[in-house]
Amino acid sequence: MANTPKNNPADKLWGGRFSEATDDLVEAFGASVHYDQRLYAQDIRGSQAHATMLGKVGVLTESEVQEICDGLEQIKTEIETGDFQWQAALEDVHMNIESRLTDLIGDAGKKLHTGRSRNDQVATDLRLYLRDATDLIVQNINDLRNSLLTLAEQESDSVMPGFTHLQVAQPVSFGHHLLAWHEMLLRDAARFMDARKRINVLPLGAAALAGTTYPIDRQFVAEQLGFDAVTENSLDSVSDRDFVIEFVSACAVLMMHFSRISEELVLWASPMFGFVDLPDRYCTGSSIMPQKKNPDVPELTRGKTGRVYGDLMALLTLMKSQPLAYNRDNQEDKEPVFDCLDTVLACLGVFNGMLPNLKVNRDRCREAAGMGYSTATELADYLVRKGLPFRDAHEVVGKTVALCVERGCDLNDLNLADLQDFSDLIEADVFDSLTVEGAIAARDHIGGTAPNQVRAAVARAKDSSS
Amino acid sequence: MANTPKNNPADKLWGGRFSEATDDLVEAFGASVHYDQRLYAQDIRGSQAHATMLGKVGVLTESEVQEICDGLEQIKTEIETGDFQWQAALEDVHMNIESRLTDLIGDAGKKLHTGRSRNDQVATDLRLYLRDATDLIVQNINDLRNSLLTLAEQESDSVMPGFTHLQVAQPVSFGHHLLAWHEMLLRDAARFMDARKRINVLPLGAAALAGTTYPIDRQFVAEQLGFDAVTENSLDSVSDRDFVIEFVSACAVLMMHFSRISEELVLWASPMFGFVDLPDRYCTGSSIMPQKKNPDVPELTRGKTGRVYGDLMALLTLMKSQPLAYNRDNQEDKEPVFDCLDTVLACLGVFNGMLPNLKVNRDRCREAAGMGYSTATELADYLVRKGLPFRDAHEVVGKTVALCVERGCDLNDLNLADLQDFSDLIEADVFDSLTVEGAIAARDHIGGTAPNQVRAAVARAKDSSS
Amino acid sequence: MANTPKNNPADKLWGGRFSEATDDLVEAFGASVHYDQRLYAQDIRGSQAHATMLGKVGVLTESEVQEICDGLEQIKTEIETGDFQWQAALEDVHMNIESRLTDLIGDAGKKLHTGRSRNDQVATDLRLYLRDATDLIVQNINDLRNSLLTLAEQESDSVMPGFTHLQVAQPVSFGHHLLAWHEMLLRDAARFMDARKRINVLPLGAAALAGTTYPIDRQFVAEQLGFDAVTENSLDSVSDRDFVIEFVSACAVLMMHFSRISEELVLWASPMFGFVDLPDRYCTGSSIMPQKKNPDVPELTRGKTGRVYGDLMALLTLMKSQPLAYNRDNQEDKEPVFDCLDTVLACLGVFNGMLPNLKVNRDRCREAAGMGYSTATELADYLVRKGLPFRDAHEVVGKTVALCVERGCDLNDLNLADLQDFSDLIEADVFDSLTVEGAIAARDHIGGTAPNQVRAAVARAKDSSS
Amino acid sequence: MANTPKNNPADKLWGGRFSEATDDLVEAFGASVHYDQRLYAQDIRGSQAHATMLGKVGVLTESEVQEICDGLEQIKTEIETGDFQWQAALEDVHMNIESRLTDLIGDAGKKLHTGRSRNDQVATDLRLYLRDATDLIVQNINDLRNSLLTLAEQESDSVMPGFTHLQVAQPVSFGHHLLAWHEMLLRDAARFMDARKRINVLPLGAAALAGTTYPIDRQFVAEQLGFDAVTENSLDSVSDRDFVIEFVSACAVLMMHFSRISEELVLWASPMFGFVDLPDRYCTGSSIMPQKKNPDVPELTRGKTGRVYGDLMALLTLMKSQPLAYNRDNQEDKEPVFDCLDTVLACLGVFNGMLPNLKVNRDRCREAAGMGYSTATELADYLVRKGLPFRDAHEVVGKTVALCVERGCDLNDLNLADLQDFSDLIEADVFDSLTVEGAIAARDHIGGTAPNQVRAAVARAKDSSS
Repeated sequence: MANTPKNNPADKLWGGRFSEATDDLVEAFGASVHYDQRLYAQDIRGSQAHATMLGKVGVLTESEVQEICDGLEQIKTEIETGDFQWQAALEDVHMNIESRLTDLIGDAGKKLHTGRSRNDQVATDLRLYLRDATDLIVQNINDLRNSLLTLAEQESDSVMPGFTHLQVAQPVSFGHHLLAWHEMLLRDAARFMDARKRINVLPLGAAALAGTTYPIDRQFVAEQLGFDAVTENSLDSVSDRDFVIEFVSACAVLMMHFSRISEELVLWASPMFGFVDLPDRYCTGSSIMPQKKNPDVPELTRGKTGRVYGDLMALLTLMKSQPLAYNRDNQEDKEPVFDCLDTVLACLGVFNGMLPNLKVNRDRCREAAGMGYSTATELADYLVRKGLPFRDAHEVVGKTVALCVERGCDLNDLNLADLQDFSDLIEADVFDSLTVEGAIAARDHIGGTAPNQVRAAVARAKDSSS
Repeated sequence: MANTPKNNPADKLWGGRFSEATDDLVEAFGASVHYDQRLYAQDIRGSQAHATMLGKVGVLTESEVQEICDGLEQIKTEIETGDFQWQAALEDVHMNIESRLTDLIGDAGKKLHTGRSRNDQVATDLRLYLRDATDLIVQNINDLRNSLLTLAEQESDSVMPGFTHLQVAQPVSFGHHLLAWHEMLLRDAARFMDARKRINVLPLGAAALAGTTYPIDRQFVAEQLGFDAVTENSLDSVSDRDFVIEFVSACAVLMMHFSRISEELVLWASPMFGFVDLPDRYCTGSSIMPQKKNPDVPELTRGKTGRVYGDLMALLTLMKSQPLAYNRDNQEDKEPVFDCLDTVLACLGVFNGMLPNLKVNRDRCREAAGMGYSTATELADYLVRKGLPFRDAHEVVGKTVALCVERGCDLNDLNLADLQDFSDLIEADVFDSLTVEGAIAARDHIGGTAPNQVRAAVARAKDSSS
Repeated sequence: MANTPKNNPADKLWGGRFSEATDDLVEAFGASVHYDQRLYAQDIRGSQAHATMLGKVGVLTESEVQEICDGLEQIKTEIETGDFQWQAALEDVHMNIESRLTDLIGDAGKKLHTGRSRNDQVATDLRLYLRDATDLIVQNINDLRNSLLTLAEQESDSVMPGFTHLQVAQPVSFGHHLLAWHEMLLRDAARFMDARKRINVLPLGAAALAGTTYPIDRQFVAEQLGFDAVTENSLDSVSDRDFVIEFVSACAVLMMHFSRISEELVLWASPMFGFVDLPDRYCTGSSIMPQKKNPDVPELTRGKTGRVYGDLMALLTLMKSQPLAYNRDNQEDKEPVFDCLDTVLACLGVFNGMLPNLKVNRDRCREAAGMGYSTATELADYLVRKGLPFRDAHEVVGKTVALCVERGCDLNDLNLADLQDFSDLIEADVFDSLTVEGAIAARDHIGGTAPNQVRAAVARAKDSSS
Repeated sequence: MANTPKNNPADKLWGGRFSEATDDLVEAFGASVHYDQRLYAQDIRGSQAHATMLGKVGVLTESEVQEICDGLEQIKTEIETGDFQWQAALEDVHMNIESRLTDLIGDAGKKLHTGRSRNDQVATDLRLYLRDATDLIVQNINDLRNSLLTLAEQESDSVMPGFTHLQVAQPVSFGHHLLAWHEMLLRDAARFMDARKRINVLPLGAAALAGTTYPIDRQFVAEQLGFDAVTENSLDSVSDRDFVIEFVSACAVLMMHFSRISEELVLWASPMFGFVDLPDRYCTGSSIMPQKKNPDVPELTRGKTGRVYGDLMALLTLMKSQPLAYNRDNQEDKEPVFDCLDTVLACLGVFNGMLPNLKVNRDRCREAAGMGYSTATELADYLVRKGLPFRDAHEVVGKTVALCVERGCDLNDLNLADLQDFSDLIEADVFDSLTVEGAIAARDHIGGTAPNQVRAAVARAKDSSS
């Protein structure tokens, strides 16, 4: 049997019944402190609240509570100044801090864990952490939304082709397109806020799985830590990771949105489109091709979608078929959620920097808006106004376009006689209907692309945010 | 060029500009009517509301509106009586219904599609469908919750082992365990209701992608169809499938819960546990082993978790990197969401039948609750009450358990002298702390496993549901 | 107790020990015959081989074997002519066929299941089915590869821009680009053939999980059914679904390739690129926009990628954490793998029709190949040939391009004096290096884009296929 | 414009055309050197081979080649001794090493990148890395297989219940069960070796995407680096990540197997089963419950399945819909594959330590093997041998079991008269058929559970490995 301090079972805070020290490989395999130390601040806040509650109900003396709270404060300082020695042999953030506390303050430290378990402790820490993370993400989303609103207003009169199937469909306002992104982000923020309701519930008091024999006051702890409520069932409290999955689900949809926005930026920055320029400082070059200026930010962001989807799948798989209450499997919840959080915040960060600096090539966009017979629907609507049922009007215009394709010309290039061959309802005023600007202005209802609707939508969005 | 009715481009409602009929393989490849006909009722309701609005704003005459609404009503009847001829050549539910309408009522039918597109139409249909599906799921969840509450109350005094790491941890009330399942389901219902908020918004009016030139009244349509609001951006309206993903995400978590409940039922029904019996009518046998009675319902349910996770991954992948606005890829949203919905409803259905008929083998559960030194924590808490810091008490009890393991005996089998070897704080009253029933009753706080807490939790849950 | 034929436990082939008929909901929940009837031909072939073997080892008489084989042949005919009555109450394809066999031939039919179980039977059926499916897929891939080789040869001298980061990078041969697709497909075929090795192993003989007490000859059955070998362990034989997962993994990579090819086709068919035209018969139109011609085939194919990824995730989730040997969960393996197979075959089918009819717009491609300073690397290589280290040459050309960007001109538009400002190594011969055709021809090594290399690659690929 | 060394565009090796330094956030966002430095050894080997080839074909002088190879060797030493300064501003492992090389040897260093690009360089590095990783994994799998063979032989006569549906099905040899695990691992090894064929192909020479204008000798490089062949198409060479996905797919199936093995170990170590003991050094305790000894290794392993599934989904998502050739998205391939590799190796490591030390509680297993009417199939087979068709025999035994259930007794507890009530074919010799040991010994064919078959299977497996 190994006799080194590190490997003596007596050194584990749970080592009493064990006759062998943990195998070295197993210790490394099971240690989580290299990533769960991120929870240190939450762990300390939670322990302080727990100790204060134990004091309130008479399990600890007032001076023990004071010693514990002060000791934890000192540990926090040690961690933040880099003076804390994290030890893998102590497994996780909880045991590292508790062990150090006992070093610092002696017996009172050994009393901190009264009436709780790591099972409810880690659930509490993670909920606190994700609540703060949620608020930070929502703040970042709102910043990005505001940038989009500003840009959309600025480009409300800019014209670009609207695409369906990546074919030119109908002309739209560039600002209108940006507002579509805004709507995605607005839903994201709402989704995070809904998830927050299920995050912000206190599990502490569940102890290992069944509750505790001490006269705890869970409501008091909840209030101290800003939780909205306490959990209703101890078994569920330690086994539930829904809140992690729901948080990551919201991140997955956000990243899906980023992948769509990124796809469009990559397309628009390609010389084949040429709709936008990204500032040099948001691009990088090639090791071999001296001319290259690559849209790295949207490309990397699009690529990072995969890792967040993967994090979601990891967590759903993790929880599949787990019997209650707590299983060690659950330790694997943290790396995916941290990876997800870091990814989302990094993407929000670079987009918040980049998007306000997007340069729109208005001329190029305007030119493209006229491609692909983009005003064909206008001609159909013109015929409807002249009395033709829509479905017949669609047929007439389809044949007209077929002629243009054959001739290799545009709708505007046909003269009145040409047009009248397809329908005698067509008169000279038809050409007013075939302009790109007219097509945009005519879609003048809530949600439509008319520039004044774009500006009105910006105004509504700003109002509801403030 | 093919001249058969089926393959003439002129037979497509969009065929004007096409010089060739659709290839047969492509027609089969792209047809969705075999599954999207599920949306027929929603499609008809939506079309009636659209037509009524067109009448209100003067685009259609009152009599045209009437003809359309009546014609659609007749089509609905034809569909529900099985008299409707669905045609793959007409691609989808929308074109099948519109085509039939024109057959029935002539020119007015050709006017129905004025000011809309299939892009906003299908989004409207699917939102209506998923709103109703959500309500149905929530109703089923609530039924299941109520069964659990009844069963939990009934078994509040039944004793079973609580497990962590599938090792016996501490004894718990059987009813308490069932309430953990209840909590999962309660969160599921809340999650669906949150998703519903983002489902129940009207996209109609977005037309193809940019809005329409007709003087539409979207708010009026929303009110007719029971939508809470109208969407704010036309491009987003036709490209957004967040609501589908969010619905399926909620289903994935629900199925994860079912997989956990099922895992426990499979374990409990195994002779190795023997905690419960499932009625014969919920089990099947083996083609080769005459004695077998298998817990098919939880096994199949656990297995079905995979398909719902798969549906979620399908939809997230589908939407990844799609540029705006509508792409044909989106047609692939329906089969996963229908599969997901059918799966969830089927699982809810069989569980709603099976769970109230679960037979708990109380004696066997009680016996197992005493295994694995399940009252060791009681002994530690006893020592804490005698003044030992918790961490030292843990150590003392750990060593006591190690002795029991060595001797192959239980904690209760040690006599007072044995126990006092480990700590002189132990006195004769210790044995009162080592009973399974005492351990349960002592966890007497909100969320704890004490039978009176279980009953109180049932009462609270019933109150808040009513 | 229900007394109807359908619900009498005695009607189940395993009903002996049951006191209740299966609940109706449960029967519907558990029935698989509506999808596993696809395995009928394999089920019959397997049963015939099993019966023949039982005859060979003396468990059945010669005449019993004959009756069974003939009876099964008749059932096959009934199924193929639509005369067979599938019954959900008989659960699955196996029980439906066995039950009908006993109807037809009496006692001999009741002997067919001797020495086997549905557990090894279904594994055998599915392996036979997927072996054939694999061969069919590989054949379709090879057809598509051959189309690409023909097209690549035809377009070996066509010029297009090669993209990285969707920025124009260097000009390439259009045929060379098509050969990149060919390489993807070649790996797909190899991957399926590797999976086939692990599919084509016979599990029959494992019976329920432990083997059988009859003197079976598994090698004989394997030879009759064309299996390469027999499985080595009975528990593994009935619990293994690796072969399904591996098949679906190969499909997932194939669909990923299709998603990339489709993405490129969608881009190239957009007026923003205009590189290719798809025949009208492979496109559809819009219900509202009369001019639209949409690339539905690549869009739908790209969208279908999600469902195959989802099928893979479904199966991986399904098998996660299943204890041995067989669990009912495994019934859920079939729908995902069938969906995956149907999807892959449908995509291969439409691409095999469409790709040979792709029309390349050579002029437009050639024009685009000159955009984006695509010959900048040529200039750097020119400088290297003049003696400048590559990294310095890269720097010089980078600055030259920066000047062009500033001036809004192309590299070719600079005169010799302009160029010499950046490096005095540049001489009049530089302009020979800056042509698109020269850039392509100069990449003249295996794998390079020079037209003669493209033709050589086509020739090698054709040789190795034949 | 920033003027600090770190932020001057001129400091980027590609900075020539840029007018702004990279934004700090973007630099952090895009840097990969903190994880791709793992490829340093492969990067250096690849560069040495590239330089040697450039010397062979006359692009570099002999002394330049020597300087480069020596310089790279020195850099390797610096890295391995920790003296190398990795810089995020230099983005990745490639640029960090090239930049240092130029510091060390001047102009020759600037020539190293002649005729290649980071696009083909990173693909080469990653292929070399995964080839070695594959070999290491296969070695570890084989070690584990050997442990299982030894243990299986040792436990060939040990008796345990075989389960289906977690109900006791038929008794099996414990060694036989272990051999089922062996078969899983054997397939895993084969799958990795098949993936290796598609990993071990050289992409270098593809340069950015189109090949290079230098007279390179790719076959020579392939031989130097031990690649089996060179890639056939330059566009494919830089865009292909199939080999990463295929590697991770093989890991996902391996982890699925580990999840199943782990599930069984967790079950078997539970007091409800009590089949095995894990050594203390492979377990840990609880922070609150002093008696707990938890099977952490299988639990964590089971949990880690999720992350590998997630890595696979991340990579499949990453590659979905990417147009050719290289996009920056692909940088996101490395973290998932490294995470996957680390996870798999860690799990293999702890299992290789733990499994040989598994202690089987033979008495407990033997006792459980008799539960659940595990010899009912023997009775049916007995009746078949007496002439009853199997399906009738199944029915008879089913009814017999139903009586036992009603009486709460075992099959063995019925007397001859009881049994004969069900079939007059039953005689006194029936009781010989109802023993657990007899049931096992009678399954005496390849793949069956008879102890001598288990030993024969071990012998075959050892032979084929050697």
